[in-house]
Amino acid sequence: MSFVKKYFQEESDAPAPLIATSRTRVRFEEVDSIGIVWHGRYASYLEDGRMALGDMYGLSYHLFKEHSVAAPIVQMHLDYKKTLRFDEQITIETSLHWVESARLNISYIIRNSAGDIAASAYTVQLLTDFAGGTIFITPLWLEEFRAQWRAGKWSTL
Amino acid sequence: MSFVKKYFQEESDAPAPLIATSRTRVRFEEVDSIGIVWHGRYASYLEDGRMALGDMYGLSYHLFKEHSVAAPIVQMHLDYKKTLRFDEQITIETSLHWVESARLNISYIIRNSAGDIAASAYTVQLLTDFAGGTIFITPLWLEEFRAQWRAGKWSTL
Amino acid sequence: MSFVKKYFQEESDAPAPLIATSRTRVRFEEVDSIGIVWHGRYASYLEDGRMALGDMYGLSYHLFKEHSVAAPIVQMHLDYKKTLRFDEQITIETSLHWVESARLNISYIIRNSAGDIAASAYTVQLLTDFAGGTIFITPLWLEEFRAQWRAGKWSTL
Amino acid sequence: MSFVKKYFQEESDAPAPLIATSRTRVRFEEVDSIGIVWHGRYASYLEDGRMALGDMYGLSYHLFKEHSVAAPIVQMHLDYKKTLRFDEQITIETSLHWVESARLNISYIIRNSAGDIAASAYTVQLLTDFAGGTIFITPLWLEEFRAQWRAGKWSTL
Repeated sequence: MSFVKKYFQEESDAPAPLIATSRTRVRFEEVDSIGIVWHGRYASYLEDGRMALGDMYGLSYHLFKEHSVAAPIVQMHLDYKKTLRFDEQITIETSLHWVESARLNISYIIRNSAGDIAASAYTVQLLTDFAGGTIFITPLWLEEFRAQWRAGKWSTL
Repeated sequence: MSFVKKYFQEESDAPAPLIATSRTRVRFEEVDSIGIVWHGRYASYLEDGRMALGDMYGLSYHLFKEHSVAAPIVQMHLDYKKTLRFDEQITIETSLHWVESARLNISYIIRNSAGDIAASAYTVQLLTDFAGGTIFITPLWLEEFRAQWRAGKWSTL
Repeated sequence: MSFVKKYFQEESDAPAPLIATSRTRVRFEEVDSIGIVWHGRYASYLEDGRMALGDMYGLSYHLFKEHSVAAPIVQMHLDYKKTLRFDEQITIETSLHWVESARLNISYIIRNSAGDIAASAYTVQLLTDFAGGTIFITPLWLEEFRAQWRAGKWSTL
Repeated sequence: MSFVKKYFQEESDAPAPLIATSRTRVRFEEVDSIGIVWHGRYASYLEDGRMALGDMYGLSYHLFKEHSVAAPIVQMHLDYKKTLRFDEQITIETSLHWVESARLNISYIIRNSAGDIAASAYTVQLLTDFAGGTIFITPLWLEEFRAQWRAGKWSTL
């Protein structure tokens, strides 16, 4: 297996990351004049990954909205390894990493159609109210989600 | 001068269209793998044109928002004549056409760096409230805008 | 069933259109500040539709490229009926219409998650060589494709 | 002045970065349903910054292409500090940092209309031939560019 950067340093007793795998197909418009996916489009693939994570574990945009909480991205980092081509089937492996504070630490591995790592990435999201004010105390519903995570609810997935 | 399609048929006594001219530069990401601007990106150029129109005549997004009116596009039509290339300086000539009803009829001419017509287009916008309900009666503030238009406020531009 | 505009007028003895149906999910980034899919993004959905058509009948980008033929869009028209929302599952029904000349006439129906028509559209593509020169004579391989179409190869789909 | 992260560690005798400042206006389509510029769009602003750098110092896409060299982005990092709004005038300050090897290290500061730092970022580009093969030896024309830089050609800008 190829080497993947470890972007987040979890506590030694942290539960394993929650992982979702999704697939998408490179759109014509995502490819630039060199014939490869333009680096800026990968942000869409990371969105797809977060959607897959939300689908699988229930931690969706809709849940956040229901609680009037936004989760703006405050940091995005991408390491590009191999180019992606038009019409290529790509796989996005998205991992939510354990953290105690009011934030979301997510890492991503994007694989090309051959299964090779095309890119790895991470994003950090803080929690805010809809007026943009940072929320420093983890909301109760997110604490409950984490309690289930620690209790092993998804450990057999 | 090259032939341009007449997309809207105004009444014979309608005031002349209000015209705004703007410029933009083709971004790298707007160009596809064939080396030409992807046809779907032209919708951005039309947005730029509407912004220029708003700047020049005051009929901006902000004015609509202030009156809690949205103006969703219900029809968009594009005729592509010549291709556009990366880094090309393009000119967008945007014309608001006179109409009595609660709608906006706008036509566009996009010229390439040589001044040739690269595309022509039109959009039709209806007025709605923010819940999406169509507004059939032209709002008073839009009537006043049209009264100034008919009175020749911008006829010397 | 709701009324759909007839965008192309086929000859009376023309074979029925070739139809492909595909699905996609509205991405977060496709939604504007009003909370609806920005009208310019629909061009991506039409691309998705053409890909589905290529998958199903073999008339793909790859086939065109193999023959050094491009098929640039010279006309795009969209009629927007209902708004689309974030995370909505949409269906795209794409129809290739019979035409004798060196062009592709395609119409589209986009349905929202309730199955209602959200938009209808058409595109016209001409054939060019890779230098951009228009091809007026239908290439042999495209004639053969049409011969199979007329012979009813896909009539039971 | 606000604190800006130092992304690259130059040698102590390195010439000062080459800096270009450009302006752009937030497009309607760049704003998401929360009413702020979607984080993925900032990659476009960084492109704008690199264009400005190319305009000012001649190190443009065209120059690279002329020499059959591509400069794909292998790393992109963004730190988001303040949100950006529709129609906001933003300023992008782009700095090319001195490096001896066959790469481009660029950092960016994006300011909102009030002049506050909205985001900072960096990108790393490697050089490749058009087949994607990495170029390890800095090409002569790039060495000459650097010689002029070190000689102070742009030191009074």
